Amino acid sequence: MASIPESHRDLVVGPNVGSLSTLGGDGAPQVTAVWFLVDGDTLLFSLTTDRQKYRNAVRHPRVTLFVIDPNNSFRTLEIRGDASIEEDPGLVVFGRIVEGYGQDPVGFPAPRDNRVVLRLTPSRVVAVG
Amino acid sequence: MASIPESHRDLVVGPNVGSLSTLGGDGAPQVTAVWFLVDGDTLLFSLTTDRQKYRNAVRHPRVTLFVIDPNNSFRTLEIRGDASIEEDPGLVVFGRIVEGYGQDPVGFPAPRDNRVVLRLTPSRVVAVG
Repeated sequence: MASIPESHRDLVVGPNVGSLSTLGGDGAPQVTAVWFLVDGDTLLFSLTTDRQKYRNAVRHPRVTLFVIDPNNSFRTLEIRGDASIEEDPGLVVFGRIVEGYGQDPVGFPAPRDNRVVLRLTPSRVVAVG
Repeated sequence: MASIPESHRDLVVGPNVGSLSTLGGDGAPQVTAVWFLVDGDTLLFSLTTDRQKYRNAVRHPRVTLFVIDPNNSFRTLEIRGDASIEEDPGLVVFGRIVEGYGQDPVGFPAPRDNRVVLRLTPSRVVAVG
């Protein structure tokens, strides 16, 4: 397991919008903007099981989070690793992520059904800048 | 070949920093921040052949450019497609890309040797927001 260096830890504490790359069925990376929560050296994402990125991560559990410093685009953090899927009882993780981005989880307009947590356990971290 | 919709064309005209995802040898997407130039419906990147992303793209020429609107992170453009490598005589493409980001290509601190163009021809474009 790889660690997130202190020099770039601010990029995952954020809140910053990242991009999550999974491997699509067509062989090309599929990339979406994501909110996330850092949990020790792992990253937590909340997603519904009808999303393509969920299906991709189950089929090919090697995924990458990428964050660009919004104040300095030459400063970036790439976290490659292994995705595992966890339940989210009471949508506690969902709520913590949404709150982390300054939103009220109660009123936040996102589907609640079939919502799970994707945990990214880093195997390689590349900090630039 | 897929087209870039007019609604989101501003994101590739930019200049915006994008992220380029290739498939790494470890099976995880490799992602780096990139400058680029739109050429019709294709995207041009300038890179040196000693970079991991070059080697990845040659081995597995399915790559993805992702751009987040710097003024609205809910507005994104994902361009998946096929990478082909081209020569860059006189480093003309390199110069146009650097100029596009407001820099002087003559003095710009980047290696000139072994520099090629990666052309991304879109097969699928996903515009969000």
